[in-house]
Amino acid sequence: MKQTDGLVLWFTGLSGAGKTTTARALLQELLEAGEKVELLDGDELRATVCKGLGFSREDRLENIRRIVYLSKLLSRNGITVMVSAITPYREMREYARKELPGYVEIFVDCPLEECERRDVKGLYAKARKAELSHFTGIGDPYEVPEQPDIIIRTHVDDVDSNVSLILDYISAKTGRGTPS
Amino acid sequence: MKQTDGLVLWFTGLSGAGKTTTARALLQELLEAGEKVELLDGDELRATVCKGLGFSREDRLENIRRIVYLSKLLSRNGITVMVSAITPYREMREYARKELPGYVEIFVDCPLEECERRDVKGLYAKARKAELSHFTGIGDPYEVPEQPDIIIRTHVDDVDSNVSLILDYISAKTGRGTPS
Repeated sequence: MKQTDGLVLWFTGLSGAGKTTTARALLQELLEAGEKVELLDGDELRATVCKGLGFSREDRLENIRRIVYLSKLLSRNGITVMVSAITPYREMREYARKELPGYVEIFVDCPLEECERRDVKGLYAKARKAELSHFTGIGDPYEVPEQPDIIIRTHVDDVDSNVSLILDYISAKTGRGTPS
Repeated sequence: MKQTDGLVLWFTGLSGAGKTTTARALLQELLEAGEKVELLDGDELRATVCKGLGFSREDRLENIRRIVYLSKLLSRNGITVMVSAITPYREMREYARKELPGYVEIFVDCPLEECERRDVKGLYAKARKAELSHFTGIGDPYEVPEQPDIIIRTHVDDVDSNVSLILDYISAKTGRGTPS
C-alpha cells in the first residue's frame, strides 16, 4: 500500500444487516474530521454504472468488478472509499482484496432471521413468496467471510459502538487520529 | 465551482481526431507537475463500467451519463479529470456541463477526410463498407460544438503546441502555474 492510497472500507453482509446504516454514520464522522471520503452504495450504483445488471452469478460478479474499478480510481488518489454492497461470494471479496491495496473487509454480521424480521425494504417477504429469485440468503448463497479485517454485530451492538470500532481500526492502520 | 472541485477537461471530436493522443501528452505534463489527475478513456470504459452498451442514441447517452458520474466522483474530491470520448451530441455535452462544475469543453477539431485518411483503427474503412453501422461521421451525426472552451486543430498544429494551449487555459482558469 502506497502512502497515497486511500483505505477502501468494504462492508459485506446480508440485505438488511446494517451495512449502509453503519457506513453512513461512519461517513459523517470522517467528513467531520475533514477526510476526503466517498460512499459507494450498491443499491445506488445499480441505478447508474451498474444499470442493467441482474442477479445471476455473472451479473453479480460484473457488478462487483465495476465497484472495484470505481474504488480503485478514487483510492489511488488518496480518497477514502466506503463500499456498501452484499458481496456474497468469496471470489468477489478475494478479487477486491487483490485489486485494492487499501482494502479492509468489514463483515456486517447479523443472523438471517434478524435481517428477515427487520425486512426494511420488504424484500425478504417477496423472496419467501418466490416473487424474487436469486435473493441472497434465500435463493442464493451468502458465503460467510473467513478472515474479515473487522466484524461488527448489528444485532448485539449499536451503531455508535460499531462506528467506534471501525474508527479505532482506521486509526491503528493509518496512524492518524480519529475524531473523539 | 467550489475551491475543491477539480477541472474536467472533456475532449470531444471524431474518432481519430487526436483526442486520446493529446490527452495522454497532457496527462504526462500534469503528472510531472505533481497534479492528481485521471484520464477516462471512452474506449477503455466500454470494457468496464460501460460494458454491454452499444451505439444507439440511448446507449450513447447512457455511456456519457456514466462517464459524467465517474467524473463527478473524482472531480468533487479535487482530482483533475480528463475525458476522451467522441461525445457526438450537443445534448450530451450540455448534460456534462450542467452536472460538472469544473467542465471545460475541448473541441478536437479535425476534418472528417483527415480522420478517415489516418484511420488508425481501421474503423472508417469498415464503416464505409457498412460493416459498422452508427459510426460517428458516417452513419451517425457529429454535432459540432458551438461554444467550446478550447479548440485545438490536430491537422494544423502539433501535439506539443496543443498541449501548451490547454496548459495556458488551465493556468489562467485556476491561477496555478503550469510546467514550463
